[in-house]
Amino acid sequence: TFWLSSREHQHLRYNPLRDTWVLVSAHRMKRPWAGQVEKPPEEHTPRYDPRNPLCPGNTRANGEVNSDYDSTFLFENDFPALQPDAPDPGSDQHPLFQSKVARGVCKVMCFHPWSDVTLSLMKKQEVVKVIDKWAELIEELGTTYLWVQIFENKGAMMGCSNPHPHCQVWASNFLPNEPALSDRCQRAYYQKHGEPLLLQYAKQEAEKKERVVVETSDWLAVVPYWATWPYQTLLLPRRHVLRINDLTTEEREGLADIMKQLLTKYDNLFEISFPYSMGWHGAPTGPHLNKDNSHWQLHAHYYPPLLRSATVKKFMVGYEMLAQDQRDLTPEQAAEKLRNLPEEHYKTREN
Amino acid sequence: TFWLSSREHQHLRYNPLRDTWVLVSAHRMKRPWAGQVEKPPEEHTPRYDPRNPLCPGNTRANGEVNSDYDSTFLFENDFPALQPDAPDPGSDQHPLFQSKVARGVCKVMCFHPWSDVTLSLMKKQEVVKVIDKWAELIEELGTTYLWVQIFENKGAMMGCSNPHPHCQVWASNFLPNEPALSDRCQRAYYQKHGEPLLLQYAKQEAEKKERVVVETSDWLAVVPYWATWPYQTLLLPRRHVLRINDLTTEEREGLADIMKQLLTKYDNLFEISFPYSMGWHGAPTGPHLNKDNSHWQLHAHYYPPLLRSATVKKFMVGYEMLAQDQRDLTPEQAAEKLRNLPEEHYKTREN
Ligand SMILES: O=P(O)(O)O[C@H]1O[C@H](CO)[C@@H](O)[C@H](O)[C@H]1O
Ligand SMILES: O=P(O)(O)O[C@H]1O[C@H](CO)[C@@H](O)[C@H](O)[C@H]1O
Repeated sequence: TFWLSSREHQHLRYNPLRDTWVLVSAHRMKRPWAGQVEKPPEEHTPRYDPRNPLCPGNTRANGEVNSDYDSTFLFENDFPALQPDAPDPGSDQHPLFQSKVARGVCKVMCFHPWSDVTLSLMKKQEVVKVIDKWAELIEELGTTYLWVQIFENKGAMMGCSNPHPHCQVWASNFLPNEPALSDRCQRAYYQKHGEPLLLQYAKQEAEKKERVVVETSDWLAVVPYWATWPYQTLLLPRRHVLRINDLTTEEREGLADIMKQLLTKYDNLFEISFPYSMGWHGAPTGPHLNKDNSHWQLHAHYYPPLLRSATVKKFMVGYEMLAQDQRDLTPEQAAEKLRNLPEEHYKTREN
Repeated sequence: TFWLSSREHQHLRYNPLRDTWVLVSAHRMKRPWAGQVEKPPEEHTPRYDPRNPLCPGNTRANGEVNSDYDSTFLFENDFPALQPDAPDPGSDQHPLFQSKVARGVCKVMCFHPWSDVTLSLMKKQEVVKVIDKWAELIEELGTTYLWVQIFENKGAMMGCSNPHPHCQVWASNFLPNEPALSDRCQRAYYQKHGEPLLLQYAKQEAEKKERVVVETSDWLAVVPYWATWPYQTLLLPRRHVLRINDLTTEEREGLADIMKQLLTKYDNLFEISFPYSMGWHGAPTGPHLNKDNSHWQLHAHYYPPLLRSATVKKFMVGYEMLAQDQRDLTPEQAAEKLRNLPEEHYKTREN
């Protein structure tokens, strides 16, 4: 049947969250690779580096001194892409030269005082503190801003310029492209089917099992049916939850568990600190707080770049930029590979 | 006024070809860069390498022997993402698990017998031969396929695994995401304004001048108002042209000229062989050949990754993947920089 042959034959899959298609050509994994090889991630970051602006007690580029923090640590981005006071370009514009005001804030949040840990290696209660802080940020910035984007760029390969474990929060007075698209798609699905898209999706995946990487009683991590990046995953609660600050204490504990499990699998895949960009999407905030957002379901996207090994990534270039995303192994193959990896982190196993 | 301050203050700009917005935060160029540094492109590729599968007379991975070509050379991709005979998954599917048949062909086209040249360094008449071949491919593959994507990945940074000057052609029985979106946007604009979007745009830019990089009597290369990549450009004819095979002999000569000029500027920017992905978009083919495509205008997109120097690129990661593209200098600043570069290639100047 078709599904048996999908590992051999290319086909398209539909992404209902973005209303786009991905070209799946699994047979391409057979091609030899003579292209660019990445530097493997640095495995020996010192726990404290006096020159690292993210370490406790150190001085940053703007002269500010970090507190001697022993848990999470939040500060304003010293080079913010969004500032609260930009002027308004006005609205009388040619349809081909339209601009709009952009206002917001950019913050940085360190996960831990040590530079040589990652979320996968932190203690569960330390990860819970990160989650609590994320919830606080959505709550606080969400009173003012329409969209609060929490994201983590991990690894030099993902443009991350500092090995210290941290994430960023960019809040804005506008709904950016990606959540705007996701909002439209989830709303249309809800109107047609009477149930949130991602709630139905999670139920289906929990039954089918073939794309599940890890699951707990409250959470599910899958390689989505429509994944574009080789080992992309989607992390979501099983209950209908709009925003990260709506999670119960138990759900936050459960999230810390499943994050540690998922990120340990990632690190174990090529036995390196796995690079990725990740971020949270939940119902919009600010003026949307009083609107009906029942079509939304909280979720995180993980986009890791690696394809074949610690040093060979998937290039989203030519065809992908000009035409459409294309992937070289099926989501089911990726999920199976991740699922079968050991639950213990390769670094703690060594000891 | 606003435009004077746009170099200092962030704002959003609208991309009418994709119905998306880009966040322009020019002040971010001031931030120091401590992140990943790329390997600069190899400057000494041998003219002929007996192990390079793209050189004349050499044997490829599948055992086929290249002809002793002295101009362009076309062959089937040995590891095609699209094949002509994939099975149809059928249509009775859950709305969250939709797949479609994908059929097509993938070809590779060498631009020149020598490995140590690029389009910028080739003779004008040699570039015209490449353009003629592109036109032939659109004509021939366009009788069968709905979309014929011509694209070039140049440089190891862009996932290109072979330094020999070449491009790829992927033809498919489906309209990929990017041209589908562009088709929708151009059609809606045409219906509303009675003139093709890109024809109006080219006229406006030719008058305004501030985003023009190079222009000839028939062609225009601009950093588009909505550019996301730092030195992204849009290349388009001034006349209403649907597809590359509709270009007259004079227009093909003119295209060779402007391509050489634009690519010379690119190479001169950081005095390296400038990496990029580029590709052509024109009216769809196959079943669309008999339909009204007046809303379309032929154009090429150039997406170069570099931001600050030959070794520091712009990372489209976290915020860009999860929320929205963001750029660190204004399109006007980028255009001015490119415009003011010498017209002679740094490599020929050295002699
Ligand atoms: O076919 P190539 O050049 O080996 O492969 C390159 O271009 C393709 C089309 O843009 C991409 O899908 C690949 O990720 C990239 O490495
Ligand atoms: O703010 P950082 O970490 O210096 O910068 C990094 O993340 C940003 C947000 O995803 C990107 O716009 C930059 O290109 C990237 O280098």
